[in-house]
Amino acid sequence: MGINVTNKEAERILIVGGGFGGVSAAKELKDLPVEVGVIDRRNYHLFQPLLYQVATAALNPSDIASPIRRIFRHQKNVGVFLGEVDQVDLSGQCIRIDGESVPFDYLVLAAGATHSYFGNDQWAKYAPGLKTIDDATEIRRRFLLAFEAAEVETDPEARSACLTFIVVGAGPTGCELAGAMAEIAHNIIPADFRHIDTTTARVILIEGGPRVLGAMSEKCSKAAHEQLESLGVEIMLNTSVTEIQEDGVRCGETFVAAQNVLWAAGVKASPLGESLGVELDRSGRVIVNPDLSIPEHPNVFVIGDQAAAKCAKTGKPIPGVAQGAMQGGAFVGKIIRKEFEAKQRSESSPKRNAFTYFDKGNLATIGRNKAVADAFGVKLKGLPAWIIWAAVHILFLVNFRSKVAVAISWCWTYLFSDRGARLITGKSKIAIKRPPKFE
Amino acid sequence: MGINVTNKEAERILIVGGGFGGVSAAKELKDLPVEVGVIDRRNYHLFQPLLYQVATAALNPSDIASPIRRIFRHQKNVGVFLGEVDQVDLSGQCIRIDGESVPFDYLVLAAGATHSYFGNDQWAKYAPGLKTIDDATEIRRRFLLAFEAAEVETDPEARSACLTFIVVGAGPTGCELAGAMAEIAHNIIPADFRHIDTTTARVILIEGGPRVLGAMSEKCSKAAHEQLESLGVEIMLNTSVTEIQEDGVRCGETFVAAQNVLWAAGVKASPLGESLGVELDRSGRVIVNPDLSIPEHPNVFVIGDQAAAKCAKTGKPIPGVAQGAMQGGAFVGKIIRKEFEAKQRSESSPKRNAFTYFDKGNLATIGRNKAVADAFGVKLKGLPAWIIWAAVHILFLVNFRSKVAVAISWCWTYLFSDRGARLITGKSKIAIKRPPKFE
Repeated sequence: MGINVTNKEAERILIVGGGFGGVSAAKELKDLPVEVGVIDRRNYHLFQPLLYQVATAALNPSDIASPIRRIFRHQKNVGVFLGEVDQVDLSGQCIRIDGESVPFDYLVLAAGATHSYFGNDQWAKYAPGLKTIDDATEIRRRFLLAFEAAEVETDPEARSACLTFIVVGAGPTGCELAGAMAEIAHNIIPADFRHIDTTTARVILIEGGPRVLGAMSEKCSKAAHEQLESLGVEIMLNTSVTEIQEDGVRCGETFVAAQNVLWAAGVKASPLGESLGVELDRSGRVIVNPDLSIPEHPNVFVIGDQAAAKCAKTGKPIPGVAQGAMQGGAFVGKIIRKEFEAKQRSESSPKRNAFTYFDKGNLATIGRNKAVADAFGVKLKGLPAWIIWAAVHILFLVNFRSKVAVAISWCWTYLFSDRGARLITGKSKIAIKRPPKFE
Repeated sequence: MGINVTNKEAERILIVGGGFGGVSAAKELKDLPVEVGVIDRRNYHLFQPLLYQVATAALNPSDIASPIRRIFRHQKNVGVFLGEVDQVDLSGQCIRIDGESVPFDYLVLAAGATHSYFGNDQWAKYAPGLKTIDDATEIRRRFLLAFEAAEVETDPEARSACLTFIVVGAGPTGCELAGAMAEIAHNIIPADFRHIDTTTARVILIEGGPRVLGAMSEKCSKAAHEQLESLGVEIMLNTSVTEIQEDGVRCGETFVAAQNVLWAAGVKASPLGESLGVELDRSGRVIVNPDLSIPEHPNVFVIGDQAAAKCAKTGKPIPGVAQGAMQGGAFVGKIIRKEFEAKQRSESSPKRNAFTYFDKGNLATIGRNKAVADAFGVKLKGLPAWIIWAAVHILFLVNFRSKVAVAISWCWTYLFSDRGARLITGKSKIAIKRPPKFE
């Protein structure tokens, strides 16, 4: 089927990671007589920015995830492989996948990042992070089970612990999670319960820095802060978490009892970067050249969350967001295409440009009609920002079907203040100790 | 909120199971000043007839599952409890939930059935059955992973084992699964793979009886058989499975190597029936009186898949299908309502009728434009049957949102021969041994 990707003559470009960066890099290579291999641990490309909506039962996993194979169905020079890349062997110019080595002519590392507990990995089991579909359904499970547990809980203190939700980290994900959870507890499900008043549920957002959405403008931070509080979210700024236990969170002197803690604080780059033997930054990201290649290996690129790159124009670091990864992937793809075409015309390789990042602006949504936008110096909040946010996100969803599904889900949620995906799946064992409370 | 369901004066009706039977029984008690408790191990009501579509990536879990709480949001006399009923204590007139006993005035058992391996429970891990959302996503995972494994498999024999799917049992679920899998392998995903030809995948349907869809008319069986074969399904009739191993299925002398086996053969009723100490039939169903109550306990009813009941008019056993459970639930609910109202008017209880089952007919779908219908003596096949099937199923989906979502998914699948929910979730560990096959 398609071109013979096993043709030994063909130049081989390996792309590790089927996220925003990897997919845009591969798309740039369309129609070239090369062999492109996209390798990912998962079979789907995930629209990360909406993952929190799966965690909060607004969207279905498949609304924001699309099989990588499907994306490249018609790009016949791409082969998609489900597998785990253990290491990169630069001297041997090959990567090791599940123990087997596969040589490359070009390598693009776009393996992304995972959440970091800043050396407190034991917190992970009490405070899950949000990076994969499975993370999202697990968070959804815990969130929904908390209300079920409270409904049958007889001890008032234990019940309020069931109904206390702590989100650590007030970046976009943290704010979006906290806002959605407060909205659900206070506006969406109260009528569904008989023994508890879900409007008494507490959602606490803990942030180490001086303001929420620290990466956005002061003005947007302020607006988001107000919007979160209007939804009943309690915000603790300049507060660092010192300990997370099964029964709550300790911040220095103060201890907050909570059955449900979510981690949206730190990320660290994929450990794959370590095997390159080049310089990494504090969060494990590979420090790359202006052209996104690594020192001494012009045929090896690192993009997206895995790279510590700077914009050649502004000198500012590239933020770890979708547009950064997409632009990096496209940039690298173009370099590889140009050099390949030059080789075919047996010309010398064209000089490479330095990567410049075009910031399309920042958006975050807090809830129904509640959002903030920073774009081209314009700062919006409330409904206008919310509409832009919704439009942009639908625009960027990978396949048309998802756009339709998401648009419908959002209209539904918007019109009827309901959430469609309130399912507790996984772990057939139920986490609830106590019997139904009849008297 | 709503009426005080903990009012000791109120009569208490406990309903075990939030399936078709339990939900219709509870709905019949609307507006009565009684305390209704619906207890289920899961938080969702599942539209079982479409579960195979989740397993085959056509629908999302939440398209066919709705939180039980949401269904009774406005019926204030219903309390919903997530919990496991361990046993029924008839002498004490109470049930034990997670060890705690809860007394009742009326009890309706609608705990349904699970799959049975006819005493070969060790087959379960090689041949999962399809009863819950988690079963469905696990089957979807195995099905999709099989193609990924084949794509990187170098040994031809091992590869064809990866691409061999066996479905045991040719009832509606078995036929629908086999048809959908064949359709996906042969028509939907071929373009997505580079190293394998998914049209070579084998789907084998093994049935112990002399025909597929044994419960339907000869004519429909014949039509379904032809439709399945036209999709490339290999059908083995009068064939009993004697052994299921990791690497395949043995039927007497013949052994079929297959990496993927699905169990759609037998069901047995919930073990809860055993604690009643009354007579059960071979598959563990409670043999009930004509009014669906159990001997000597007129205030305890068993309905749906958990009951072995006969239609008072035809004398035929009630089939274990949605309409049987719904009609049984409504029937029982009406009895309880009448007797309660009589009590309130301090009249003596009205005489109970015997349950009669109204068969609205049988439907099964095999694939795109392919279905069979047996209704009121009329027998349909092909597109007309498929349209009726689709209409009926959308009609019976619990909430409006699901209807919209499912209708759209089906239109999409129909128009573009695509499946939206092709996600491999769960088990972060990948089941694929071999490395990507580049040369």
